[in-house]
Amino acid sequence: MKNLIVAQSGGPSSAINATLAGVCKFAFESGKIDKVYGGLHGISGILEERIIELNSILDKDEKLDTLAMTPAAALGSCRKKLADYKEDDKEYKILIDILRKYNIGYFIYIGGNDSMDTVYKVAKYCKENNIDDIKVMGAPKTIDNDLCETDHSPGFGSAAKYIATTISELGYDGDVYNVPTVNIVEIMGRDAGWLTAASGLARINGHHVPDLIYLCEKPFDINQFVSDVKRKIAEKKTVIVAVSEGVKNSEGRYIAEVGDRKKDAFGHVELAGVGYVLKNVVKREIGCKVRSMELSLMQRCAGHIASKTDIEESKLIGYETAKYATEGGAGKVGIFLRNDKNGYSVEVDFVEISKIANKVKQVPIEWINEEGNDIKQELIDYLYPLIQGELPLKYKGGIPETIVIQ
Amino acid sequence: MKNLIVAQSGGPSSAINATLAGVCKFAFESGKIDKVYGGLHGISGILEERIIELNSILDKDEKLDTLAMTPAAALGSCRKKLADYKEDDKEYKILIDILRKYNIGYFIYIGGNDSMDTVYKVAKYCKENNIDDIKVMGAPKTIDNDLCETDHSPGFGSAAKYIATTISELGYDGDVYNVPTVNIVEIMGRDAGWLTAASGLARINGHHVPDLIYLCEKPFDINQFVSDVKRKIAEKKTVIVAVSEGVKNSEGRYIAEVGDRKKDAFGHVELAGVGYVLKNVVKREIGCKVRSMELSLMQRCAGHIASKTDIEESKLIGYETAKYATEGGAGKVGIFLRNDKNGYSVEVDFVEISKIANKVKQVPIEWINEEGNDIKQELIDYLYPLIQGELPLKYKGGIPETIVIQ
Repeated sequence: MKNLIVAQSGGPSSAINATLAGVCKFAFESGKIDKVYGGLHGISGILEERIIELNSILDKDEKLDTLAMTPAAALGSCRKKLADYKEDDKEYKILIDILRKYNIGYFIYIGGNDSMDTVYKVAKYCKENNIDDIKVMGAPKTIDNDLCETDHSPGFGSAAKYIATTISELGYDGDVYNVPTVNIVEIMGRDAGWLTAASGLARINGHHVPDLIYLCEKPFDINQFVSDVKRKIAEKKTVIVAVSEGVKNSEGRYIAEVGDRKKDAFGHVELAGVGYVLKNVVKREIGCKVRSMELSLMQRCAGHIASKTDIEESKLIGYETAKYATEGGAGKVGIFLRNDKNGYSVEVDFVEISKIANKVKQVPIEWINEEGNDIKQELIDYLYPLIQGELPLKYKGGIPETIVIQ
Repeated sequence: MKNLIVAQSGGPSSAINATLAGVCKFAFESGKIDKVYGGLHGISGILEERIIELNSILDKDEKLDTLAMTPAAALGSCRKKLADYKEDDKEYKILIDILRKYNIGYFIYIGGNDSMDTVYKVAKYCKENNIDDIKVMGAPKTIDNDLCETDHSPGFGSAAKYIATTISELGYDGDVYNVPTVNIVEIMGRDAGWLTAASGLARINGHHVPDLIYLCEKPFDINQFVSDVKRKIAEKKTVIVAVSEGVKNSEGRYIAEVGDRKKDAFGHVELAGVGYVLKNVVKREIGCKVRSMELSLMQRCAGHIASKTDIEESKLIGYETAKYATEGGAGKVGIFLRNDKNGYSVEVDFVEISKIANKVKQVPIEWINEEGNDIKQELIDYLYPLIQGELPLKYKGGIPETIVIQ
């Protein structure tokens, strides 16, 4: 019987460990896999033979459950890009030697579109070199929801739930004072506005926030922004603006880089944040109280407010990917197909890795309003099921219980 | 039978509505109070007669329960400071007229040390003018935990639980990469480091974060900070630093103001954040990957991760304050006395408002380590009970259910 190795790559999320737990669950209970190994810090660690055995560490179902609710990447991560093996196959040879040393039959790599480049290259190398004793598979993950082919990405729903909840709470906070105030919330997403769009879910129980939503899919115009804010602040005291970090002007340059044209000399590039640029614009053009906030790393690791739907689906895709590999599948990555005939449900399918690696799926323009300052109901309908449900979190000493495996 | 009016003042918190719910609960079930009114936007709104009746809005226990779990100030807040009535008693006369118009026998004002200035002045004005048909009482509230006399402040425990949980999650996030990284987390507190100290609770399950904790009670030395970070980064890859926004140098000036001496010209005053100043220091002096984050308003309104202990105690102090007023008490504010003989519990007592108004309670220096870069076990022991327990939150559509009453 062959062994399996699993590793994690790219940015952390609240769900990447759920996928790891799913892989382990299948491996432990299927009877088709002997040992399960974890590669530490992704492909970088495997190449250095930093490999641990997981069977004994995760020897109880309870531990797998806790792992699935532990944020970030329990095996550690990396951002390594493998060379093109046609130019330099040294690392590929080292990798195959190490995998064979550990009698690996199945190699599952959990990551986003950049990490899928690794899976794609390794799978292709194996195929072209007739290495068929190792089945290489990808399992998707990214809070950004920018993976192609799949209806949505594991990890996104939890980040979306954190964002919706936080914007809702900031809405209550903002409504407290009777003084005109603009609160700008900068949300992750350089090339895709999915996370920023999730802020719109704060409205599902009737709240007005966010009052304005700017995604990076449409050109951002500072004058239009000023007039939008002026109009909103005339209607209500506190205006909450959700903006993608990656909004760009009509020439395609990041607002955070070009800044506020009239004050370029202020060194906005150094500051990076579009929120800071827009805060200064509001201060000067409107003159009211204004604050900018970044959800920063919190939005990708807030496991305490993870979406149950997301965590369960992430576990499922890990499970199915390991299963698919033992059935002979290779060179593919799992995706979700949405079924909303009788309520929402998903099925896992598999596609060629080349269809996902290095590609970005943006929010469809037709889901953004004409003015580019809000999202449409179709987008809310798409997002809504992904944040449903809360985890049966265990707390220990007042903070969520987690598991550390490296 | 007399009526009661309650209002909220100062910064929002996750628990100020629990105190409001406690006041209402007593008023509704005691049989000693006829109508309960809410003053909108604190004393400012009462002076403009923006007053609503709460009996019909909060007519079910279930609504009071939801109110207790709704963050921010449901009646709205203000930051108004009343004039000295010896110099100008106009607003005092308006206030008394309005209170009498509504047949108010009990006026309960929920707020922090600044807001207690209002209670103190109104109570004193009543006493000196022989107005004994209106009993004025204060109920404490502040996420800062800087109120004197009381063991701790309602609202602090929930902010502390958010901070501990978030720092713990940022710890897992930070441990993911195998690259030296410094993450600086700036936490609220201009004059008292209690909230920053709460970051230390992230360690209670064995995690190493935060690696360094700087409270504003001890002078902050940038050179010492650099050497602390250098030492820590040699031990582990990712170092998390928790720092009070209000840290000051040995001359008592805010680091965020004086900035990094060598680069004063960079305009740090404009940026305000000490995190940003320290990020630039690390970038220049150490040269590794560095990021600064602010927990910003999220730390004061994250009701979804409120402390059950805090919410229950906040409700209790509201209940007891209303009760005390109906028993003839006036001119006082509720405080918590801690009892830790047989496990942790609190009792509510009442003290003269003058003992709390306009005063600040700092973290005792003996609870901070010699080097000023960490806290001692005594402080952890003090903080620990305050974040215990989780609320039976109800979710609706994937985000916490709340109640809006204004």
